[in-house]
Amino acid sequence: MILTLTTDFGLADGYAGAMKGVILSRAPRANVVDISHEVPPHDVLHGAFVLFQAAPFFPPDTVHVAVIDPGVGTARRGIVVAHRRHFFVGPDNGVFSPFLDEQAVVYELADPDLWLPDPSATFHGRDLFAPAAAQLATGLPPAECGPRVDDPVRLPAWRLKREGDSFVTAVVHIDRFGNCITALPGARLAELGSGTIRVIPEGGPALALRRAYGEVEVGEPLALVGSSGLLEIAVRNGHAARVLELTRETVVRISVS
Amino acid sequence: MILTLTTDFGLADGYAGAMKGVILSRAPRANVVDISHEVPPHDVLHGAFVLFQAAPFFPPDTVHVAVIDPGVGTARRGIVVAHRRHFFVGPDNGVFSPFLDEQAVVYELADPDLWLPDPSATFHGRDLFAPAAAQLATGLPPAECGPRVDDPVRLPAWRLKREGDSFVTAVVHIDRFGNCITALPGARLAELGSGTIRVIPEGGPALALRRAYGEVEVGEPLALVGSSGLLEIAVRNGHAARVLELTRETVVRISVS
Amino acid sequence: MILTLTTDFGLADGYAGAMKGVILSRAPRANVVDISHEVPPHDVLHGAFVLFQAAPFFPPDTVHVAVIDPGVGTARRGIVVAHRRHFFVGPDNGVFSPFLDEQAVVYELADPDLWLPDPSATFHGRDLFAPAAAQLATGLPPAECGPRVDDPVRLPAWRLKREGDSFVTAVVHIDRFGNCITALPGARLAELGSGTIRVIPEGGPALALRRAYGEVEVGEPLALVGSSGLLEIAVRNGHAARVLELTRETVVRISVS
Repeated sequence: MILTLTTDFGLADGYAGAMKGVILSRAPRANVVDISHEVPPHDVLHGAFVLFQAAPFFPPDTVHVAVIDPGVGTARRGIVVAHRRHFFVGPDNGVFSPFLDEQAVVYELADPDLWLPDPSATFHGRDLFAPAAAQLATGLPPAECGPRVDDPVRLPAWRLKREGDSFVTAVVHIDRFGNCITALPGARLAELGSGTIRVIPEGGPALALRRAYGEVEVGEPLALVGSSGLLEIAVRNGHAARVLELTRETVVRISVS
Repeated sequence: MILTLTTDFGLADGYAGAMKGVILSRAPRANVVDISHEVPPHDVLHGAFVLFQAAPFFPPDTVHVAVIDPGVGTARRGIVVAHRRHFFVGPDNGVFSPFLDEQAVVYELADPDLWLPDPSATFHGRDLFAPAAAQLATGLPPAECGPRVDDPVRLPAWRLKREGDSFVTAVVHIDRFGNCITALPGARLAELGSGTIRVIPEGGPALALRRAYGEVEVGEPLALVGSSGLLEIAVRNGHAARVLELTRETVVRISVS
Repeated sequence: MILTLTTDFGLADGYAGAMKGVILSRAPRANVVDISHEVPPHDVLHGAFVLFQAAPFFPPDTVHVAVIDPGVGTARRGIVVAHRRHFFVGPDNGVFSPFLDEQAVVYELADPDLWLPDPSATFHGRDLFAPAAAQLATGLPPAECGPRVDDPVRLPAWRLKREGDSFVTAVVHIDRFGNCITALPGARLAELGSGTIRVIPEGGPALALRRAYGEVEVGEPLALVGSSGLLEIAVRNGHAARVLELTRETVVRISVS
């Protein structure tokens, strides 16, 4: 059984190590795999994107634990998301937004029998999410974690709305080259039907959809489907976020004409 | 079998990888788990704290290797600490202080048959500690590593002395929020008997013990038992180390009246 | 089966995690071990050195995947190197130079059946190298990956030439203490026969070969065989690269007289 970890703990402290210990104490044969512990502190949207990049490539029945949890100690819920034979365990703060589609079934992590005894108010990763994840990995059905959740928190930026013959989404990630990645999977472009696709960031120019950078001149902007499988806005040999003044959460409309 | 690694090697070089290779060459089925490779260089006290945070959560028979080893190449000993069904392997420089209580049994790592052939003078993590740890993980009794050690090095800061109706300890860690964590486990406060507990950092004011930040006003100092299980000194919504002028190794007295 | 990963992806993104997922989807029982994800971006020579430090310590049949790949998307080949019962998978850009000796057998990674369907042009680590490595780990003979490669790319700095009664090599790594490590294994010094060995960095003084730092005065330069097993140039208690004005790729001649 495989469990992955995605946190904002960094690696200079023992927090991630403590979570691994808790998991291995309850699931000694588990394969605990680091996805990232270097999510910027409290950056839930970044954590969601990292999970989107990595989690879908793991085999069925993998349990993904994510702890980017600025609301720990408040009334925010803990949840388990069952999605396409993967399980996601963590805070209900939107970090699982990429997986909250119509195939997701969400449960509250409400049964204290799944937690460590006397859980702290400040480290639910170790005291709630790790032990619950270990039990999911060893066969606990997610429905036994607690009641169904019908309104899990979704990040506004990870939106994907159909409006007439358009999709409306937003920039969810800017990579180190300045490419601006949206939440629209390239595979869904076909739903817009035949015609010329235009990608229009709010306040910016309409961009043509291309297959490769080489189809435009150096310095020219374009839209294309990147290695993440998502529609992105780029500038050939340039930094699209700076050139086009785009930021995370900039709304992007994709239409066909 | 599970082995954990805690080092100050960073991850830009192959040092941690070499240790993993040595372990897996001798214990091919071992589960080698990273606790941290980002301990600040040569910071033995930080390494001790990271181990304290993480190691106790691992299952019985886990072998913990720690290599924060500024004295490598000098006459400092290598040791194996057996403590509550865990094993700790590394230099005898205090990095295992949190586990050197009356339940610890310590052996010198003295048998060259446990080392790599022709060990280097500068990388005992790879040449001595990794191969010895692999053999402990596969069943070697620690007593076969070498003679008993009755005087392992203890860090002065990780002190915990009973003096009359007081404990005397020190600040062992300052977290990124400025909270000042001492070496006194909260569970031992009961030994002081009933009465009002006062926590008195050297040169500072006597602080009341609280259960949660919310019990004092914003900006006020307090003492409480944190998620590490240790007594800590904090300032609500503030940076205790700066406000109270505390540093690592500041002596802290805890008394009851 | 063991697979190691060495990349320049850093750990703030999901790239390394995606590779782990691809490997575990094809080889669910694999032990995927991080060597480093902190190779400086595009620094192929640094990646080669990290591999040299760590890979040889792993047990036979380990598969090492290296993705420092500035040429991804160009015509550079992907290769598999079989060397002393280890396998290396990655771009043909010199990152495997330390293992490209007369015992190496190299194959092009040419069979698209080994790749993910519809591989991206920008992330061969995930789409080509990870799936091929998983298949090698589960028993695929390397010769089935593609045709033999007789001219794999070698880094100029990782040279080791015999010229008469000398070796000519270069500085391949400067560690954080300023020690300048060459590509000459200390074990090969014996090939020069008896006599006094001189180590002569280009433009610098001839240095005597010593066994330990303590054999020279503080501040004096020396040559010795370090913990990597390679000949290095150092200054006792000093920073050899700065004192002697050496950089990576500085040519070093070793002769006997």
